[in-house]
Amino acid sequence: MFNIEAYIRDIHDFPKKGIVYKDITPLLQDATATRETVAAFLSFLEGEKIDKVVGIESRGFFFATLLAQELNAGFVPIRKPGKLPYDTYRESYSLEYGEDTLEVHSDAIQKGEKILVHDDVLATGGTAAAACKLVEKMGGEIVQCSFLMDLSFLKGKEKLDSYKVVSLVSY
Amino acid sequence: MFNIEAYIRDIHDFPKKGIVYKDITPLLQDATATRETVAAFLSFLEGEKIDKVVGIESRGFFFATLLAQELNAGFVPIRKPGKLPYDTYRESYSLEYGEDTLEVHSDAIQKGEKILVHDDVLATGGTAAAACKLVEKMGGEIVQCSFLMDLSFLKGKEKLDSYKVVSLVSY
Repeated sequence: MFNIEAYIRDIHDFPKKGIVYKDITPLLQDATATRETVAAFLSFLEGEKIDKVVGIESRGFFFATLLAQELNAGFVPIRKPGKLPYDTYRESYSLEYGEDTLEVHSDAIQKGEKILVHDDVLATGGTAAAACKLVEKMGGEIVQCSFLMDLSFLKGKEKLDSYKVVSLVSY
Repeated sequence: MFNIEAYIRDIHDFPKKGIVYKDITPLLQDATATRETVAAFLSFLEGEKIDKVVGIESRGFFFATLLAQELNAGFVPIRKPGKLPYDTYRESYSLEYGEDTLEVHSDAIQKGEKILVHDDVLATGGTAAAACKLVEKMGGEIVQCSFLMDLSFLKGKEKLDSYKVVSLVSY
C-alpha cells in the first residue's frame, strides 16, 4: 500500500491545546493519493456486495461519496441534528462532557440492505457506534466500518467489537 | 440529459416556514442517478484542464469530491470558520440578517491553477461569490462555477456575472 501517512498532516493544539489534530486535506488535494486511498479501502471489500455507503458528517462525506460510486452503491449522509430536512431517525451518544445526536433520513436504508459505515477518524468510537445503531434500527446489515485512521490509544474499536472494522492508518 | 429533477425532493417549511427546501438525498441514494449527474457536469467541462475542484461546506462536498476524481484534480474544501485546522484565508459576506465567513487553507491553491468552484445550490450567490474571491485571492483562475440547481428567482447569477456559471436544474 502507498504511504497514506505522508499525506496526513499533524496540527498541534487544534481544536484545543494539547490535541494533535490529523489533517487530511493534503491527501484530498492530491488526486492520485485520493485514488490510491479509495483503492486501499476497496481491497478490504473484495467480493462484498454493498447497497449503501453511510458517511458521517462531515469529513466522512469525502471518501464515502467516492466509495459509494466505486461500489455502485447509494450514498447516505448521517448528520448532526437539524440538517436533514425529511423525516429522520435519531440516536444520541455520550461525549466526554454532555452528549451529541446523529440523524438519518427514515427512507435512506431499507431492511436487509448491506451497509458500509464510513468516517475519517475512529477516536473513542461513540459517533460510529451511534451511526451503527441507526443503521440497524432501520434494518440495515453492517458489512464493515471503515476509517481512514484509527487513534488506537482511544480504544474506539472496543465500542465496535460486534463489527468488522478496517482502518488504513493506525496511530 | 436524464431527469435529475425526479431525484430532488421538495420539503415544505424547511428550515423555516414558507421556504421550499430542495432535498438532494434521493439523488445521492441512487448510484446510477449520481453517476449521470457527474456525467452531466463533466459535459460542460469538455477540453478544460482543472487542477482543483473547490467544494463549499457541506453539501457542496458531495459532488465536488466525485468531480475532482473524474477530472483527475485535487479536492479543496471551503468551510465555515473554525473547521479548517491549518493556516487559512477568510472572506466575509452579507446575509439577509448579519454576515457569514468562509475559510480555505492557505496552501490549498497555487497561483495560476485552474479552478472549478462547486456547490449544490445557487441561491442569492453570496456564498459562491465569497468562495470565488477566496480562490482569486490565492491566485487561482476560475474556469467555471457549477451548481446542481439554481434558484433563479433569487438572481444569484448576477453576483457571479464575471464567471461562467453552469447549473443542471433551474427553478
